Amino acid sequence: MDFLNELKNLKKQVFFEEKLEIPRNYDKIVIAGMGGSGIAGKIFQEMYTDKPVFALDDYHIPEFADEKTMFVAMSYSGNTEEVIAATREAIQRGCSVSALTSGGELESIVENVIKVPSGLQPRSSLGYMLMPLINSFLKVGSEAIRKAGDLLDDLDSRNEWIKDEAEKIFERELIPVVYGFSPYRSIAYRWKTQFNENAKVMAFSNYFPELDHNEIIPLKQTYRKDQFRFYTFGCSTDNRITKRIHATGRVSGIELEHVETPGESLVEKMFYLIHYGDYLTYHLANLRKIDPMDVSAIEDLKKILKG
Amino acid sequence: MDFLNELKNLKKQVFFEEKLEIPRNYDKIVIAGMGGSGIAGKIFQEMYTDKPVFALDDYHIPEFADEKTMFVAMSYSGNTEEVIAATREAIQRGCSVSALTSGGELESIVENVIKVPSGLQPRSSLGYMLMPLINSFLKVGSEAIRKAGDLLDDLDSRNEWIKDEAEKIFERELIPVVYGFSPYRSIAYRWKTQFNENAKVMAFSNYFPELDHNEIIPLKQTYRKDQFRFYTFGCSTDNRITKRIHATGRVSGIELEHVETPGESLVEKMFYLIHYGDYLTYHLANLRKIDPMDVSAIEDLKKILKG
Repeated sequence: MDFLNELKNLKKQVFFEEKLEIPRNYDKIVIAGMGGSGIAGKIFQEMYTDKPVFALDDYHIPEFADEKTMFVAMSYSGNTEEVIAATREAIQRGCSVSALTSGGELESIVENVIKVPSGLQPRSSLGYMLMPLINSFLKVGSEAIRKAGDLLDDLDSRNEWIKDEAEKIFERELIPVVYGFSPYRSIAYRWKTQFNENAKVMAFSNYFPELDHNEIIPLKQTYRKDQFRFYTFGCSTDNRITKRIHATGRVSGIELEHVETPGESLVEKMFYLIHYGDYLTYHLANLRKIDPMDVSAIEDLKKILKG
Repeated sequence: MDFLNELKNLKKQVFFEEKLEIPRNYDKIVIAGMGGSGIAGKIFQEMYTDKPVFALDDYHIPEFADEKTMFVAMSYSGNTEEVIAATREAIQRGCSVSALTSGGELESIVENVIKVPSGLQPRSSLGYMLMPLINSFLKVGSEAIRKAGDLLDDLDSRNEWIKDEAEKIFERELIPVVYGFSPYRSIAYRWKTQFNENAKVMAFSNYFPELDHNEIIPLKQTYRKDQFRFYTFGCSTDNRITKRIHATGRVSGIELEHVETPGESLVEKMFYLIHYGDYLTYHLANLRKIDPMDVSAIEDLKKILKG
């Protein structure tokens, strides 16, 4: 599948109806995953706070993980070494373990497995990874899901206008900085990683209100300020955050690009923003004449680690 | 107190012996704090994983916070609006609430208060904020604390050599990027915020192994790569992380500055690294002829938010 078709695959993924098996007696959730697979856990952690949820992106599980812990291993390939290591620990510790994967070693060490279709880049499987979490824990109506699918479809058929935005970054070789806020902090991080992986440019993310306690200072008075391009999302429903976003722009004098979000529900806005970031970074890759699929740096790293 | 004396105050703070009152029946900890006060909760969250710990840097407490939640409010001034809002919610929800503050509104709404000495910038009170958490939950011997104090004292009397490092950033107007790893992720973030607040330069942090799944790609092939200066810490005790750090440097071709850490215990290494970052950002501020105490951007923001 070429990369554009991978991007277009997302609208199918939001209708993925699988659910995780919920253990009878549990009081916390640990979701292990790295990079393009791990982002689903990070997003979910913000959406669901009824129980403590930990998005784990490291080799070791926390000490508190026990028999009353629901542990979800996420690795699209099924061979991510950090996730395999953490999953082995979770099994040892007696957690209720399940996995979301397209195969690999993970499939062979975990009993409860939701298999997702293979053949994609891990970062293009976000819908497959996220929807089972949403389906299992959140009450999202089928109407909202359908509308989210429609928004993705719209973006798939009309996204050339996002190329104008990509051109602004490209022309001046800018460094994108994306500012999120709850529950969209991880969407900002998703953009950062898509800039990194698809367009091969450095990019960073941060979030309100924390950034108003430190990063706002250089925003006002640093060198090289004009070498960044700053983004935030136009979907804050908290007045205090909206005020902060505007005040931060005013105090610092930076041009803070607000990406507007059609749709009503959180799920619609979320998937719209994810896909906007997909196309922005895809167009930037094209402008840079760079293959968005190329992840040779990561492959080189893996070779060295194995050697 | 001038800023240099604020920095020198840290060695006194590690001997701050206060302890938090631990509730009889609790199963999770939420620590609310922003910026220079919030960093203590973020650091502690990595050091202590026997129970779920959440470092909260937002207005709202998570849904799971209940009567079995120990809630610690941290605000040096006692008037941080996000912390006040979250603390009011925690009281309402029936959490066991205590606070670390030098006064302000927080002192008047919370019963269990540990008062810390006033007169510092919030970011210079890290020892006062962190030590009560360490004293209450971790078994750190007095010998390790004494040695940590000695390391800080050494840095206070001899830190001119760190100016050479600051000069490298200054001369070429570089953007510092600091790479941590567990349990030093938040120390990398602390450096980022100290660069922001003291030296008034943009700076970013990230951590291994997650960055090997995305940021490594532009590290190898982005534009503007030579405008950053990359740091990591020389204290990984996990072979897999050490290997990743070296392999990441090799694959990407970046010059990754390893900051070595004297000391044996985690507490010694941690405070040493914190203080190294203090002096690095202090010297950079001096070279830039910038007042490290000036936080007028934050004050301007507060005025707009109140208006």
